Amino acid sequence: MCHKEFIISKKQHLTELGRGNYLRLIRDGRWEYADRVNARGAVAIIAATSEQQFVLTEQFRHAVKRSVIDLPAGLIGDVVGEEDERSEVSALRELVEETGFHASKLTHLADCPSSPGLTSEIVSYFLARKVTRVSQGGGVEHENILVHTPKIRSIKSWIRKQVSAGKLIDPKVYAGLYFLSTQ
Amino acid sequence: MCHKEFIISKKQHLTELGRGNYLRLIRDGRWEYADRVNARGAVAIIAATSEQQFVLTEQFRHAVKRSVIDLPAGLIGDVVGEEDERSEVSALRELVEETGFHASKLTHLADCPSSPGLTSEIVSYFLARKVTRVSQGGGVEHENILVHTPKIRSIKSWIRKQVSAGKLIDPKVYAGLYFLSTQ
Repeated sequence: MCHKEFIISKKQHLTELGRGNYLRLIRDGRWEYADRVNARGAVAIIAATSEQQFVLTEQFRHAVKRSVIDLPAGLIGDVVGEEDERSEVSALRELVEETGFHASKLTHLADCPSSPGLTSEIVSYFLARKVTRVSQGGGVEHENILVHTPKIRSIKSWIRKQVSAGKLIDPKVYAGLYFLSTQ
Repeated sequence: MCHKEFIISKKQHLTELGRGNYLRLIRDGRWEYADRVNARGAVAIIAATSEQQFVLTEQFRHAVKRSVIDLPAGLIGDVVGEEDERSEVSALRELVEETGFHASKLTHLADCPSSPGLTSEIVSYFLARKVTRVSQGGGVEHENILVHTPKIRSIKSWIRKQVSAGKLIDPKVYAGLYFLSTQ
């Protein structure tokens, strides 16, 4: 296969340097970044049970070759036929798919760039209190997600144990702890 | 220009789908992610003055077409001749380059993936208390960085104002607030 660098917009100096099934690499003047091709954005859910447990996920991430502890999170509009899905609907769907927990109410907290030096992705953060378990979770298709429900009051020592076991902590987890303590 | 998809490793099923000056797009089996080509990693500094001001940056990010409030942060090993720079040295350098603040002591807090669903980048977080202003900051070369020093105790209303003005908040800022309140 042979790709041409594809000029997207001469006026905006946008060039596509490469494209896969999920991401494309864009040059924008002097800048370069990864852009999702199959989704309109992403959601992350800061979920706590009424027993003050924090609902977290663990999955192996090929990009970093490590297991990563994260908030339940996923893409908006990546399901065929559901491209116009609202972010709140994506958040409820991802929470139950990944963790088996259901939220009766979501509060939108913030829209944050994932890593704006290298990607256009924006993540919408939602808060869900008093979530209840309705199924096993674990994700869909090829996803293989472990669910953790550590107590928030002893989260520092729990995180320390995860790091000692070789896992990485996504910074969304720390952002989530900030929101849990201030909202 | 015409690129071939470049097989990096048949055994690991790694293919390069595109390459720029700073990033390359990798396919790893079913997975795709962006990989930096000019740096070994990144650093972010959670810096506070003795007056309990939080040292933050603001810069326009082309990937999201918005100004983003962030921790002072930068790459490790992206300076020609300094490719083996230690992460602590990068952190001290970036803090003073971007903000004009000097730290006499750094504490390493965590190594976190930027966004492990789409990039291999790992960010090392450092805490710097009692930083002191030694220069203007603003960044190097093409960087055009504004420095903010909001009071930590009124950070929620300060952030609300920034968001109302159309700026995005990098989640590293919220992670930083968690670490400031717990370390």
